[in-house]
Amino acid sequence: MASNALYLVCDMINDLVHADGPSKKTYAPELARRKTIENTATALAKARSAGAKIGYVRVGFSSDYRECPPNSRLFQGAKKAGMFKLGTWGTEVHPLLKPEPQDFDIVKHRVSPFYATSLDVILKTNGIQRLYVSGVSSSGAVLSAAKDAHDRGYDVFVLDDCCCALTEEQHQAVIEQVKRMTTVTTAAQVTFNEEFQL
Amino acid sequence: MASNALYLVCDMINDLVHADGPSKKTYAPELARRKTIENTATALAKARSAGAKIGYVRVGFSSDYRECPPNSRLFQGAKKAGMFKLGTWGTEVHPLLKPEPQDFDIVKHRVSPFYATSLDVILKTNGIQRLYVSGVSSSGAVLSAAKDAHDRGYDVFVLDDCCCALTEEQHQAVIEQVKRMTTVTTAAQVTFNEEFQL
Amino acid sequence: MASNALYLVCDMINDLVHADGPSKKTYAPELARRKTIENTATALAKARSAGAKIGYVRVGFSSDYRECPPNSRLFQGAKKAGMFKLGTWGTEVHPLLKPEPQDFDIVKHRVSPFYATSLDVILKTNGIQRLYVSGVSSSGAVLSAAKDAHDRGYDVFVLDDCCCALTEEQHQAVIEQVKRMTTVTTAAQVTFNEEFQL
Amino acid sequence: MASNALYLVCDMINDLVHADGPSKKTYAPELARRKTIENTATALAKARSAGAKIGYVRVGFSSDYRECPPNSRLFQGAKKAGMFKLGTWGTEVHPLLKPEPQDFDIVKHRVSPFYATSLDVILKTNGIQRLYVSGVSSSGAVLSAAKDAHDRGYDVFVLDDCCCALTEEQHQAVIEQVKRMTTVTTAAQVTFNEEFQL
Repeated sequence: MASNALYLVCDMINDLVHADGPSKKTYAPELARRKTIENTATALAKARSAGAKIGYVRVGFSSDYRECPPNSRLFQGAKKAGMFKLGTWGTEVHPLLKPEPQDFDIVKHRVSPFYATSLDVILKTNGIQRLYVSGVSSSGAVLSAAKDAHDRGYDVFVLDDCCCALTEEQHQAVIEQVKRMTTVTTAAQVTFNEEFQL
Repeated sequence: MASNALYLVCDMINDLVHADGPSKKTYAPELARRKTIENTATALAKARSAGAKIGYVRVGFSSDYRECPPNSRLFQGAKKAGMFKLGTWGTEVHPLLKPEPQDFDIVKHRVSPFYATSLDVILKTNGIQRLYVSGVSSSGAVLSAAKDAHDRGYDVFVLDDCCCALTEEQHQAVIEQVKRMTTVTTAAQVTFNEEFQL
Repeated sequence: MASNALYLVCDMINDLVHADGPSKKTYAPELARRKTIENTATALAKARSAGAKIGYVRVGFSSDYRECPPNSRLFQGAKKAGMFKLGTWGTEVHPLLKPEPQDFDIVKHRVSPFYATSLDVILKTNGIQRLYVSGVSSSGAVLSAAKDAHDRGYDVFVLDDCCCALTEEQHQAVIEQVKRMTTVTTAAQVTFNEEFQL
Repeated sequence: MASNALYLVCDMINDLVHADGPSKKTYAPELARRKTIENTATALAKARSAGAKIGYVRVGFSSDYRECPPNSRLFQGAKKAGMFKLGTWGTEVHPLLKPEPQDFDIVKHRVSPFYATSLDVILKTNGIQRLYVSGVSSSGAVLSAAKDAHDRGYDVFVLDDCCCALTEEQHQAVIEQVKRMTTVTTAAQVTFNEEFQL
């Protein structure tokens, strides 16, 4: 029987998480300290063994930033920094977390992986009920994914040690927020076969 | 000229914020300490003077909870407690913040005021570009409203002292999160005529 | 076991289908000739016996038409005619098709019952997979409901003789359109237990 | 000043409109008779001169059809026929209507170009108010685009002679349907600068 689980890996792209990219000034220290990339690789391997589907969310814009919101502080900052260009190294998934051909590739132009993307139709078409979420930043894409998935009726699991924020305090604040509506687990504990507990 | 601003007051309903309701066990102490209701009344008066439109978001379910998600810890808890029944005192807006006939009434069945509601069509139909948001809880409806409004291209302002969470720490975590994409202001400072700054 | 079917009755409101209302100039002759109201009453009774859920879609606006799109020929026409005012007789469901307390009431401000309404969240929360659709007009709300429901992955059935357009030709054009993606049936044939055939 | 118009060319992909593809059994005779491709080329040239933006909608699936709805007669038919594979000739835009680098590419997995795609966020980000629509089929993607765009508040123009259905009757039925909410024009008449008339 096909699994009804999908593991959604959010924004683990070179511009945000590769040690050779601009993340040096942002997430790199926390990523290293939390071992986010290594833990995500572990979780991905377990998800594949368990027969869960995999989806990679990637934030990105055309090279002229035509999809970039003119009044967004967040994304105008990315534009100024020349980040998130589709078709370049910066928006590829980190090489240690390499997608396979059968995985879903979900390109987004905003924070939430659900907004104006194919994510919801992919989940429905594939009978997904349990959604596992992790990535960067905890308070950006991961938090939006968790909140929006809860509202859409999915059973949501957040992989704590596969996430990262600018500081551990910021990350912990998100974990506290999502605990009210999701199950928080880790790369070591997760089986991708767990039942969601109310 | 009609204002392009709307003030969205989220979930300031008796079940969540009235001293005589079940909020005694949840938000009441923080609401009193932060003067959330009084500050919201001040902001509402200023919004009305400035010609901004007003929208009240109210979470609610039919008396048999037929819209209540079976797998949501958050909302099954509300169901067990008998909260959020539409057509009862519990889902009416707090008497000090009384809606007027021309205000918008947006009933929602989930956390985000944008999900499966009339909010986006109301904003578009009325030419709204600047969205002011406050209410309870900071980390629930307010955070979802702010994040979702940002993704939809609105200029978002959060009224800090018109919000409330279970603790001040939880509230401050939200303020830190929304600062990256919204302008944080207060009932005393806000004019409802401010320009959004990148 | 709860049925996974819902019967969606679209815009069978007095302003559009009651012989004493403005429909005299629009749908009344076709409604009488096709026996749309009687057939819908038959289908509703069968749906209730079969344990299917019922949803009534009603188009409507506040009395100042604040949700009415300024650039819509269709809805500005309704505004000029003083139609579709919520809270008045005109937006009540026709008395022969009277809703019961457990039915869903879905108010919409546009043509499609899915756009900016609670419909999709209601369907998901209640485990609905099979959606039965009828109402007026065939080419307006019914066609949008059928197309949008198909795109969202529901198994769609259209009740031919419970619909109505301005002319039989217009109605038949819609039936031809929806045949490619839905099953067309009638009040006499439908059981609300049928399996969807590819 | 940037134009607030976008021309949306729907599903003019080789699998549906190229004389050497499977359209031989479907749209080819009508496409030839109506000169749909030639007219679309004319309209595209005028749109580019007028400074309107261009968006190409393309229906498509991964080669294993993982996004294809299992219960859709329409799309399971396409799967059986091996059509609509992304990354192949069949889902490329017809060579006479070749996209330019600055154009938008909107991939969809269902009938409506608005459902689960980036279309709405593209329109909002670029300040689009006037949406010009054409393509195949008239009763499929074009009709859904026109209806959904109307509901979302856009001023919609349909380019009659740049569309095509299986028969002229089917096409005319769509034109009659969309006339109530859009302005119908032609490749010869359109300027991409017209004001929408109520």
